Amino acid sequence: MDYSKEALKLHEKNGGKVAVVSKIKINSRDDLSTAYTPGVAEPCREIAKDPENVWKYTAKKNLVAVVSDGTAVLGLGDIGPKAAMPVMEGKAILFKEFGDVDAFPICVDTKDTEEIIRTVKNIAPCFGGINLEDIASPKCFEIEEKLEKELEIPVFHDDQHGTAIVVTAALINALKLVKKEMSEIKVVLNGPGSAGTAIIKMLLESGVKNITACDEFGILYKERAEGIKDHKKWLCTVTNLDDMRGNLSDALVGADVFIGVSVANILTKDMIKTMADNPIVFAMANPNPEISYDDAIKAGVAVMGTGRSDRPNQINNVLAFPGIFRGALNAGARDINYDMKKAAAKAIAEYIKPEDLNAENIIPSALDKSVAQAVAEAVEKAAIDSDAVRK
Amino acid sequence: MDYSKEALKLHEKNGGKVAVVSKIKINSRDDLSTAYTPGVAEPCREIAKDPENVWKYTAKKNLVAVVSDGTAVLGLGDIGPKAAMPVMEGKAILFKEFGDVDAFPICVDTKDTEEIIRTVKNIAPCFGGINLEDIASPKCFEIEEKLEKELEIPVFHDDQHGTAIVVTAALINALKLVKKEMSEIKVVLNGPGSAGTAIIKMLLESGVKNITACDEFGILYKERAEGIKDHKKWLCTVTNLDDMRGNLSDALVGADVFIGVSVANILTKDMIKTMADNPIVFAMANPNPEISYDDAIKAGVAVMGTGRSDRPNQINNVLAFPGIFRGALNAGARDINYDMKKAAAKAIAEYIKPEDLNAENIIPSALDKSVAQAVAEAVEKAAIDSDAVRK
Repeated sequence: MDYSKEALKLHEKNGGKVAVVSKIKINSRDDLSTAYTPGVAEPCREIAKDPENVWKYTAKKNLVAVVSDGTAVLGLGDIGPKAAMPVMEGKAILFKEFGDVDAFPICVDTKDTEEIIRTVKNIAPCFGGINLEDIASPKCFEIEEKLEKELEIPVFHDDQHGTAIVVTAALINALKLVKKEMSEIKVVLNGPGSAGTAIIKMLLESGVKNITACDEFGILYKERAEGIKDHKKWLCTVTNLDDMRGNLSDALVGADVFIGVSVANILTKDMIKTMADNPIVFAMANPNPEISYDDAIKAGVAVMGTGRSDRPNQINNVLAFPGIFRGALNAGARDINYDMKKAAAKAIAEYIKPEDLNAENIIPSALDKSVAQAVAEAVEKAAIDSDAVRK
Repeated sequence: MDYSKEALKLHEKNGGKVAVVSKIKINSRDDLSTAYTPGVAEPCREIAKDPENVWKYTAKKNLVAVVSDGTAVLGLGDIGPKAAMPVMEGKAILFKEFGDVDAFPICVDTKDTEEIIRTVKNIAPCFGGINLEDIASPKCFEIEEKLEKELEIPVFHDDQHGTAIVVTAALINALKLVKKEMSEIKVVLNGPGSAGTAIIKMLLESGVKNITACDEFGILYKERAEGIKDHKKWLCTVTNLDDMRGNLSDALVGADVFIGVSVANILTKDMIKTMADNPIVFAMANPNPEISYDDAIKAGVAVMGTGRSDRPNQINNVLAFPGIFRGALNAGARDINYDMKKAAAKAIAEYIKPEDLNAENIIPSALDKSVAQAVAEAVEKAAIDSDAVRK
């Protein structure tokens, strides 16, 4: 199937992908007088008396804004807010189809960090959550951090945390197969951008101790922290505890896990042969991975995952974000903390029953809509247990 | 029926009134690959090449933002953006139910004029139109004017223009019954706020020459323009051509038409008795009109309209806004000009067939969903004829 051609046809025929509909039919005078004036004044008054009632009488409790400035859309780069719209609509419908979350695309006509923050704060009264999407690094970090601090609703940058959660889920199951522990493995991550940085944070939160990160200049180490972007500065201090120098191939010697969120074909069979026994490779560059599935298997990789839907073990964010927000909204969460993220990763991993777990089946299918429900329940419980719930 | 109690139940049970749904089912790998990655990259690329393609491949062409800062909600005043949400959701579902327009509530967390303008401009890439709602006067004038100038999409403040259009439609038909001409009548308008000012503009555009406006201090006249708010300053120069002084009762002597967008019970039977023969009264204060329907009829009013659904001739904006935006979106209009507004008023008036026209039936029922279609066709044609269409 030629997805490009089909996509154009589908988008044009339907006039985009999202629709806003009424939960209520308006056929009689009573309908109109209850859903609109004069009756509607009463929920307004109740909310004016106590703003918390907005959660009781409005759609806020199920509405999520999918916000992008269009600066880092798919692999297409800075294509602007209008060109980002098909992706944000796509995300919105996945929220609905998988998590029954009412998500609405908000593509903002500014690239300025402060202006994006202000715009999102200004429209926040309508929403129960904010999903940031395809915003370039490093400003995505500041935008998420400030909004998280200033808003009473969860703010989640899916490119960071969605990816990190699904990678962690895949790693939990891959480690079961190779019989290794999080605390003992050596992980090499290539491409410490927004997703890469979030993966490293999440793995550290999940018990991994030894992580080495490589960017286009090679291994990150403490002295490189000088004059470097904020998030990489932090990475220089928490990764590479052995203070190694060199490039990706140097880093990989003896490594248990390679995680790529970088570019096609950067990982070779020869590099894989220098890794520890039973190496795990998650090569997630899109559309073409850091090494092809078949080459990785030939080079002796024990468990291989990619971003591709035509190979086993597709590491796809849709396994995480609909259930995360479903659970956060159900709980009435103020934010999405690491307890909730870890609970989501664990729920995705445990969705694969022990008897079904094998090297070609470490993670559920992206099309399995019941995953979101399992994730939602785990996230809701974690939100309550970790006191992340609005009073 | 106790609408207040029913409204609370309805809003709580449904969790508000709007839902965001997918136009496309996602059940297979092909569905996912066409609506989302990798296929979605293709409409993104097409829009990046030519931003006009956003109208072809996204939901923008049918999306309208219903924007409020919650400063003038119904008769409740400045209740804030959260408490405004039930009204904006109500508006959104009326857009959908009557005009098949996908409208989304945007309640902004700022009362600052410039900040509201900036926020709306920032989120405009997703929308095909902006409906401003329940924003206090006089800032509503500046917000509408600046957005209209700076955005390529229609901006419409319904409290102003929706009301003006429906009043004009009602007046067209009422004048047929009393056999008077727009150019000859003397109109008195009480309450020159945002709706009142827009009604006066629209009537002047429609051929009325003699209009007198009264506020809480009495008749507006040229010398009162000193040190007065902008929109009233303008009113002082275009109304009261006879340079009358006095209060409402003075203004009404010999008047053909009273239009009230003010407060309950301000118009008395005695005042009506001083009006010209066959007086027309549109008493639209909510929920209680400037004079009750029954008292007006007793005092000899020939044609009486109110905002109430339990009396004949309900002057209700829902007759205008869904069709206006439907027509503007169908035409690909850049703005909603007076040709389009007048076409809408005419279409609403002409929706009442000559044989059905009588003093208790000058305007269609607010529940008649085919009115919007008639309005849409007239507005679309007027947009094209008046060159209000995007190139």
